[in-house]
Amino acid sequence: MRLPDSVKDIIAAGAYGHVVTLNEDGSPQVSLAWVKVDRDDLLIATLSDQRKLQNLLRDPRVALSFETDELNEWGLRKYVVVHGRAVVELGGAPELLQDLAHTYLGPDVSFPAMPDPPPGFITRITVERVGGQGPWSSRA
Amino acid sequence: MRLPDSVKDIIAAGAYGHVVTLNEDGSPQVSLAWVKVDRDDLLIATLSDQRKLQNLLRDPRVALSFETDELNEWGLRKYVVVHGRAVVELGGAPELLQDLAHTYLGPDVSFPAMPDPPPGFITRITVERVGGQGPWSSRA
Repeated sequence: MRLPDSVKDIIAAGAYGHVVTLNEDGSPQVSLAWVKVDRDDLLIATLSDQRKLQNLLRDPRVALSFETDELNEWGLRKYVVVHGRAVVELGGAPELLQDLAHTYLGPDVSFPAMPDPPPGFITRITVERVGGQGPWSSRA
Repeated sequence: MRLPDSVKDIIAAGAYGHVVTLNEDGSPQVSLAWVKVDRDDLLIATLSDQRKLQNLLRDPRVALSFETDELNEWGLRKYVVVHGRAVVELGGAPELLQDLAHTYLGPDVSFPAMPDPPPGFITRITVERVGGQGPWSSRA
């Protein structure tokens, strides 16, 4: 689906993604990640083969939750939940992390701060549904 | 298990909980919530019978993810993930929401701002495991 511009703006401004994957027993696994908007997809970079990648190979269903700084008319914080499916690709993580570090840490930050980083993995998320509380949600 | 004081402090200071439950098809469902620390349990109040409550009746496994304002030595934001099991109890939601509104909205805020709120539900979460990135996590 087409990712609403309001959602792209929130993520591109540096909101952290609470990335939910499913463990082998079906229980939820959560980790915090920097997220890149790539047209209508979302990208995550990881240097090592983390639990969430192993989970996504088994079950590609993923949800990403983002807080915003805005409150709705009830005083509750607006938030975005993106539901989608993930494909894990080998390589490209250091370059994407450096790109994202400009957003999340600062324009002059060098990241990862190591001499010869591994190629890592890029997780590409195709968006299927957007929820949460805000104008991007059908429940808003 | 005993909830670490460092985790209690983060939640009691007003961090929002990204609450993950499991839909009937096993996919993750996420919503943002105010969270109360009650000794070693976590409490959530809801005025209406939301999707997450229906999910928890079917499968009590739940995860709550909280951002902090602190960065670790890599410049990555510290966060807490609490894994547990939930029991949903009828009643008490307006009182707990009023209590939590003092933390999340301000000391003088009246919430919910309606004349005769329904009793709602309180979800009590027994903590089984704490993860994330920080001194409270075995992976820190």
